[in-house]
Amino acid sequence: MGKGETTRQAILDRAMTLASQVGLTGLTIGRLAEDLELSKSGLFGHFQSKEALQIQVLEHAAETFVEQVVRPALAEPRGLPRLRALVERWLAWDSSLPGGCVFVAAAAELDDRPGSVRLRLVELQRQWIDFIATSVRRAIDEGHVARETDAVQFAQDLYGIMLAWHHHSRLLGDPVAEQRARRAFEALLVAAAAREALPS
Amino acid sequence: MGKGETTRQAILDRAMTLASQVGLTGLTIGRLAEDLELSKSGLFGHFQSKEALQIQVLEHAAETFVEQVVRPALAEPRGLPRLRALVERWLAWDSSLPGGCVFVAAAAELDDRPGSVRLRLVELQRQWIDFIATSVRRAIDEGHVARETDAVQFAQDLYGIMLAWHHHSRLLGDPVAEQRARRAFEALLVAAAAREALPS
Repeated sequence: MGKGETTRQAILDRAMTLASQVGLTGLTIGRLAEDLELSKSGLFGHFQSKEALQIQVLEHAAETFVEQVVRPALAEPRGLPRLRALVERWLAWDSSLPGGCVFVAAAAELDDRPGSVRLRLVELQRQWIDFIATSVRRAIDEGHVARETDAVQFAQDLYGIMLAWHHHSRLLGDPVAEQRARRAFEALLVAAAAREALPS
Repeated sequence: MGKGETTRQAILDRAMTLASQVGLTGLTIGRLAEDLELSKSGLFGHFQSKEALQIQVLEHAAETFVEQVVRPALAEPRGLPRLRALVERWLAWDSSLPGGCVFVAAAAELDDRPGSVRLRLVELQRQWIDFIATSVRRAIDEGHVARETDAVQFAQDLYGIMLAWHHHSRLLGDPVAEQRARRAFEALLVAAAAREALPS
């Protein structure tokens, strides 16, 4: 990475953290400049427009998510171990940002705001939900989960568990919310008649 | 209701609809004045400040929610029939606003913004979640749901089902999301070993 690219990555890291707190639509070039103590004109050189900044923050968040959640889970055996690793890492991801998952904030803000930022968010969210559903199908293939399990239903239900956890812990400050999210995931596995993989 | 109060209610109705789309923090007196084609100074007469407007919109949304969701459900028999009615009405409530449930939008926006608006939102959300948990306890008392059911866990899980439905239908435009939300609620009842009340 050249010096320009290193600077850009550092700016995007800071912008992602800020977006987790003030929301993606709250993230303007002016606000970021203030936060970084840089000049607005310098930041315009990197991002051109508010929308370009917001989209690049989404891309950066997606890359970071793949790095912290998807890639380590892919190192686990297919099926249930991988699914469990995804959930563990997903929980850790939300906790790693001061305002929690930047996608949760962006989703609620952008669902009624058509435009290029929303389009990109929808693509990224679909990719992630498809990835969960595919992981459930792999668990079926491995015989870890009952054949009748509806992978898309499982993915939506798991998403709900994570959203409720985010809501109950971030907004309501409920210290038991994370434990309940884990229990709900276990109940989802019980309903899917999940059998732990035997050591081979 | 006097004429002033009727006007105030009509303004709050419109403000709630607007907040469901632009978010609660996007709801300023200027924005609302533009939307209603009224003067800003006239609206200031009703609301004094942006925070006062936002809090009154929350109160108004809570009253409307009680009217549309809680009161009709209370007309149903205690236990499972009431719980089912709550879920049905809750689903209808989210669909009744162009941007969906105003509390969902507000929750994601405000979770990192301390202040009086957030405090009031937290109180209202806690009341609603407590009400769900109490309804589950009533269903246990009536013998409709297994005695071992954790009512607070049930409430968080149900909240997750509704949030995932909102997310999948509002953001991702998934037409099957509502059907999946209903299935997830039925699965939650199965896990709680719910028995339908026999006609007496």
